[in-house]
Amino acid sequence: MQEKDTIYGIRAVIEAVESGKDIDKVLIKPGLQGELFNELMATLKTHKINWQKVPQEKLFKLAGKNHQGVVALVSPLSYTDLEPVVEAALAEGRTPLILILDGITDVRNLGAIARSAECAGVDALVLPEKGSAPINADAIKTSAGALFNLPVCRVPKIWYSLKYLKEKGFTIYGASEKSETAYYKGDYRGPVALVMGAEDKGISSQVHKMVDTFVALPVKGEIASLNVSVAAGVLVYEILRQRESKIS
Amino acid sequence: MQEKDTIYGIRAVIEAVESGKDIDKVLIKPGLQGELFNELMATLKTHKINWQKVPQEKLFKLAGKNHQGVVALVSPLSYTDLEPVVEAALAEGRTPLILILDGITDVRNLGAIARSAECAGVDALVLPEKGSAPINADAIKTSAGALFNLPVCRVPKIWYSLKYLKEKGFTIYGASEKSETAYYKGDYRGPVALVMGAEDKGISSQVHKMVDTFVALPVKGEIASLNVSVAAGVLVYEILRQRESKIS
Repeated sequence: MQEKDTIYGIRAVIEAVESGKDIDKVLIKPGLQGELFNELMATLKTHKINWQKVPQEKLFKLAGKNHQGVVALVSPLSYTDLEPVVEAALAEGRTPLILILDGITDVRNLGAIARSAECAGVDALVLPEKGSAPINADAIKTSAGALFNLPVCRVPKIWYSLKYLKEKGFTIYGASEKSETAYYKGDYRGPVALVMGAEDKGISSQVHKMVDTFVALPVKGEIASLNVSVAAGVLVYEILRQRESKIS
Repeated sequence: MQEKDTIYGIRAVIEAVESGKDIDKVLIKPGLQGELFNELMATLKTHKINWQKVPQEKLFKLAGKNHQGVVALVSPLSYTDLEPVVEAALAEGRTPLILILDGITDVRNLGAIARSAECAGVDALVLPEKGSAPINADAIKTSAGALFNLPVCRVPKIWYSLKYLKEKGFTIYGASEKSETAYYKGDYRGPVALVMGAEDKGISSQVHKMVDTFVALPVKGEIASLNVSVAAGVLVYEILRQRESKIS
């Protein structure tokens, strides 16, 4: 993380947060006190910004001497709200496809999925505010820059966003190795939200309940599962295939 | 590379080669001479084993003091000949799918493609003897072990293997971004060999001439191309889909 990607000093961080800057996380030296510090913590709470206590040395390394015990890591890209993306797609008469990553933790997987999603014309990538791989330099490199071209939405709760999408007429598909429905048996010709779960744990239980249909990629060999970025690529391209060829 | 993956000493390397051991490459100290050395070089030539001159320090590091100026890097897996795999599939009444990597140089891409290929039930992975990523510990790790389960064939010339496959009734498909044929328009229900080209240069010119049909993955966004391991995953799964659903 380079200096340009950080904001430091308590007052500067408060102002950055209040101005709506996209901040991944605020790092705080243990033991800070005082009125200004309390104001900071209240601001972080109001704006739902992640924060973490870290050793002073880490703050020095990130921001030099003048950090005042507080360093904000600025996101290298601007996040988008989900609702306007969906409304715009529907208003333009397009059939939207929203790709939702429910806890992908590997930055390379995140980047690779973003690249495939951008290529396949996905309308937006949705990530949870907590528990997702950070969008850092590695993720952006692996995405071949796709993370700058594709709307990326960070949402407080995935299940809540799925509720919104259902209300808008979306069918929610979830990728699950346990499903007995082959992925190509889904019908993706209407508005679709596709949920990919975490590399290890799959789709989380709250999100699980919101999924309409689980689909699996058939596995013929001994290796039990595909890499999640390959699985995501296969699924978004099947959706594209059905929409282009008008055949499910 | 650990000690168990090397064979050192001129006589030992000659015997390993003659016994048919799978050797990736032989590393040789510059300036070696003598009758035994000449015998080594003749043996390497006869068996078409790659060799390379490297500084003495590298040999020390790999094999300790007793290397005698010659260290063979043993492949961690056993390669298979292509012909018996094809003959067996045809004899068993299966419809074979052979995946050919024409110069993939990134070990992680090689590993990721092997993983998807094994999952999709590809019959064999074909690599050229020269100009391919090595099958090293990184490749095996990325493959999730698939490289041990999937027949891997190293062939002297890809185009020559394609000639053989054509004679056996295979249709040769090549992935090319320049093609105007969407990949799902191919008919993959007969015996198929699918060629993926190098990350940078695509399919080489000699191999190009042997391809029956080039197919492309449609790209909707700004990023010009997919990662080759994702593209390979999409293609092998489309082949699987057509064969399972009996629909092209």
